Amino acid sequence: MMIWRVNMQKKTLNKEDVPDHWEKLGGRGLSAQILVDEVQAVCEPLGPRNKLIFAPGLLVGHMLSSCDRISIGGKSPLTGGIKEANAGGSTGLTMACLGIKALILEGFPLDNDWQILYLDKDGARFENAGDIAGLGVYDSAKKLIQRYGDKIGIALIGPGGERELFSAGIQNLDKDKEPSRIAARGGLGAVMGSKKIKAIIFDAAGTNKPLLKNPEAFRQAQKIYTQALMNQPQTKVYADYGTAAMPRMSNGFGGMPTRNFSSGQFEDVEKISGEYMRNLLIERGGESNPTHACMAGCTIRCSNIFGDANGKKIVAPLEYETIALVGSNLGISNLDTIARLNWEINDLGLDSIEIGAALGVAAEAGLMRFGDGDAAQKLVEEIRKNTPLGRIIGSGAGITGKVLGVKRVPIVKNQAMSGYEPRAIKGTGVTYATTPQGADHTCGLTIRAKVDHLDPNVQVAISRASQINMAGYDSLGACIFAGFGFGASPQSVKDLINARYGWDVNEDYLQVLGKRTLSLEREFNRRAGFTAKDDRLPEWMTTEPVPPHNAVFDVKDEDLDSLFNWE
Amino acid sequence: MMIWRVNMQKKTLNKEDVPDHWEKLGGRGLSAQILVDEVQAVCEPLGPRNKLIFAPGLLVGHMLSSCDRISIGGKSPLTGGIKEANAGGSTGLTMACLGIKALILEGFPLDNDWQILYLDKDGARFENAGDIAGLGVYDSAKKLIQRYGDKIGIALIGPGGERELFSAGIQNLDKDKEPSRIAARGGLGAVMGSKKIKAIIFDAAGTNKPLLKNPEAFRQAQKIYTQALMNQPQTKVYADYGTAAMPRMSNGFGGMPTRNFSSGQFEDVEKISGEYMRNLLIERGGESNPTHACMAGCTIRCSNIFGDANGKKIVAPLEYETIALVGSNLGISNLDTIARLNWEINDLGLDSIEIGAALGVAAEAGLMRFGDGDAAQKLVEEIRKNTPLGRIIGSGAGITGKVLGVKRVPIVKNQAMSGYEPRAIKGTGVTYATTPQGADHTCGLTIRAKVDHLDPNVQVAISRASQINMAGYDSLGACIFAGFGFGASPQSVKDLINARYGWDVNEDYLQVLGKRTLSLEREFNRRAGFTAKDDRLPEWMTTEPVPPHNAVFDVKDEDLDSLFNWE
Repeated sequence: MMIWRVNMQKKTLNKEDVPDHWEKLGGRGLSAQILVDEVQAVCEPLGPRNKLIFAPGLLVGHMLSSCDRISIGGKSPLTGGIKEANAGGSTGLTMACLGIKALILEGFPLDNDWQILYLDKDGARFENAGDIAGLGVYDSAKKLIQRYGDKIGIALIGPGGERELFSAGIQNLDKDKEPSRIAARGGLGAVMGSKKIKAIIFDAAGTNKPLLKNPEAFRQAQKIYTQALMNQPQTKVYADYGTAAMPRMSNGFGGMPTRNFSSGQFEDVEKISGEYMRNLLIERGGESNPTHACMAGCTIRCSNIFGDANGKKIVAPLEYETIALVGSNLGISNLDTIARLNWEINDLGLDSIEIGAALGVAAEAGLMRFGDGDAAQKLVEEIRKNTPLGRIIGSGAGITGKVLGVKRVPIVKNQAMSGYEPRAIKGTGVTYATTPQGADHTCGLTIRAKVDHLDPNVQVAISRASQINMAGYDSLGACIFAGFGFGASPQSVKDLINARYGWDVNEDYLQVLGKRTLSLEREFNRRAGFTAKDDRLPEWMTTEPVPPHNAVFDVKDEDLDSLFNWE
Repeated sequence: MMIWRVNMQKKTLNKEDVPDHWEKLGGRGLSAQILVDEVQAVCEPLGPRNKLIFAPGLLVGHMLSSCDRISIGGKSPLTGGIKEANAGGSTGLTMACLGIKALILEGFPLDNDWQILYLDKDGARFENAGDIAGLGVYDSAKKLIQRYGDKIGIALIGPGGERELFSAGIQNLDKDKEPSRIAARGGLGAVMGSKKIKAIIFDAAGTNKPLLKNPEAFRQAQKIYTQALMNQPQTKVYADYGTAAMPRMSNGFGGMPTRNFSSGQFEDVEKISGEYMRNLLIERGGESNPTHACMAGCTIRCSNIFGDANGKKIVAPLEYETIALVGSNLGISNLDTIARLNWEINDLGLDSIEIGAALGVAAEAGLMRFGDGDAAQKLVEEIRKNTPLGRIIGSGAGITGKVLGVKRVPIVKNQAMSGYEPRAIKGTGVTYATTPQGADHTCGLTIRAKVDHLDPNVQVAISRASQINMAGYDSLGACIFAGFGFGASPQSVKDLINARYGWDVNEDYLQVLGKRTLSLEREFNRRAGFTAKDDRLPEWMTTEPVPPHNAVFDVKDEDLDSLFNWE
């Protein structure tokens, strides 16, 4: 494996040996190490000194179930801190086949032309992207596949990333060549846009899966891990309902964001539940499919294809967080409306969590009535048309609140919370507050912990454990659901790693990776000027009770500040 | 003198003794001490825990030339840090006559009704402001004077403050009852708006000037100070041209912000010079007046009344910083256009520096052509109409840049720079970078220092001395030009203070006040989460050379960090 370094000013690719201290890192952890080593933390996120990193996780490349994810990193224009966003699909796999340990994109081109960065086993080509610039991600991906064939991975941005909107993500092809696997959060699509890269093609033709140091041991470990994963009952739930299994559970805890986080229960929750959706999709038939895999080899198949009344695909996938932020958070209970909004937001290349939260704030400012799907659609069209209002919303919930004069804005480090009300699921509130990434459930979701989610005194330990695990999984390239398997079979991490690389890591390697990653991220943010005051929920959430439990967020500041005490 | 504390939730006024450690502070320094003592630095600036402080300087109350200024303080919604903005006019004088050492406004009302806070020697009344809410400051002031008579001071906000725009200031009556003396910077008008106070009436009827402990010594000290002031040649310049004397000087140094800080020289500088303006106003006659005092007793009379071709007043005053930011910074060289824009911005109750900078950014984004006064007027009308675009611009240059995707934004701590290009006048650049207030020339202007303004190695000492002096003057209630007098007669500070209060302060008291003030402000910002990375000019100013000197800002980071080394 090599480091591939692309300089956009010189239009060059250098392949470099992996420095020793990067070797045993991957994915999120490697991205953090590169950023700490190479990027001045105070740099302008959309300036030439920021870098964009693509790093497959350590286990990527062998179609281990739920373990082929790609981590994308850089300094976030949304939070001003370190950012890693990861995605399924085929980008990680094709990169691993090309032998890319990490791709580092640096510098600004001297001209203003949109580029396609084409990478294959022979190196890099820079091609003009004039004919796809301005197109949405779906049309862009179609044209790119026409041009480059369908044996490729693609990472690309939509109009949102081209316009450097802070809510812009980077879309990746799934295994069916749909550009719907978005590394969504924190505005990394804007960083890619600032470097004038519309798309990166990873052409793995003529390559093989990365070398296994001990193939027999690997296959053995793979079998044990896969079996452990499939034996977990939750994997069955996700196989049936996808992440859309969550609304009933969230709502039951009073943790379903509703009407700009003014309630934790949504009266129409049944209409947006996974159970309802599954039946609807089965009934509709056609392209509809409630169980669909995003990555080759995945045994969970948590994803779905949402078809309309005629079975014609509207969007794939429709995830819980989108259902929450674009659904209940806007008072919208019609899944077709939510699916259409999701397609639009995807096509623009934007983060549906951030946009949903921004629309909730806009609704509170009076720009739409809660529950009015047409009005929500019109506001998303404003983004498409690049109007000042569209740019406000595309800048995320924080700026939308500032500009429109709304004080009830659900953000930490200027990034929107996702589908878990932190006053009701307080452990996830601790994660929102303290993770270096800004409010992000994927950094340490606690909703499945067996605790009283309202008790402020027990949450820090739970969030800490979850944050360490998640930072570890994100370094392996493992999906959050892979954790069910690793949790049941903890030795699998070391067995898989050692068999693949010939290393001799211990059973605590997941923890080692997680802690190292979090420490690096904290160090970057410290250099960027973050302090304890950034590790807080917004003031209003500490004083305004949320129904039905009428709870406020009351985890003590000193407890929040103790989260990283192992450092 | 007493502390008057108004609780907006309970609608009460408490008069309290002055705590010992507040006693010898005034104006900006007292405001800083109160904020450090009473306001949680991490609070939401537009939330109920922020406070708004009005504190006359220590010398206010005796119509000493240029020494009756009012300091207004609070946590800034624009910068997120401590904020003091001061103004001339009659607010300070009437407060001093009422015996108010400081007025502290706290809490939020329980209802949503706009209030007039009426203060006189008998206490406070809260009156409904329904009939003036929504009006511009000029009409508002007229109605208030009709209602309360003209023996009053008024501090009020315009529609900008009511809408809590981050560029909203607080206007004060000048000695001619014009509400044109704005405590402009940092969004304190939004803080006043968040407390639902449209206007504060200070009715000094039945009061006297504050007691002089030693009247004879005071009159003697006053005579010496006034003479020293009038003997300074610069005061003559300002008497003739006002602050509009600056364009030729700034331009000569290559320090005149032009077209969104893309050049330091403006080809049409003559048409916006003070010399040109003076001749124009004399020629036009009527209400035009190039030499006008904002405070009773001022011997400099640096202000002006700008009349149109028929001598009818357009705006008063027209200051250099407005000429720079709304003129050359927008490529506009027509003084009538600049004056009309200034009136509009004033009437909305906004900071013309912040709005001028935001318009420059908007022009760079393509929303107006540089030099097109009609287009600038239309953009200001968007603010009046409260459109999304208007709210973007009203949120200041920083947010305008973020939302519109412009990277060349002239801000520090999210506050716009004023009429001095920091790459050409590097000492003022050091002030912009390091002052706790965010970019603000009034915190330490260095253009008159006898140094090479382009040499990065000599600026920190000059900025430090100027920042200490200015923080001292702002604590005395002294205008920047009073410094000419105190500079020539340094013992005047102690003589005036000791005669007034019966204290025994030393000749270094200006320095003592200045250092104490800056240390308090730094402490507040530290608690609010500011670090060294906030004490920097924007990255692009360190890499992009500005004509005509093709200079970048190259004062070293470690030099910037040494500025407050006495602490």
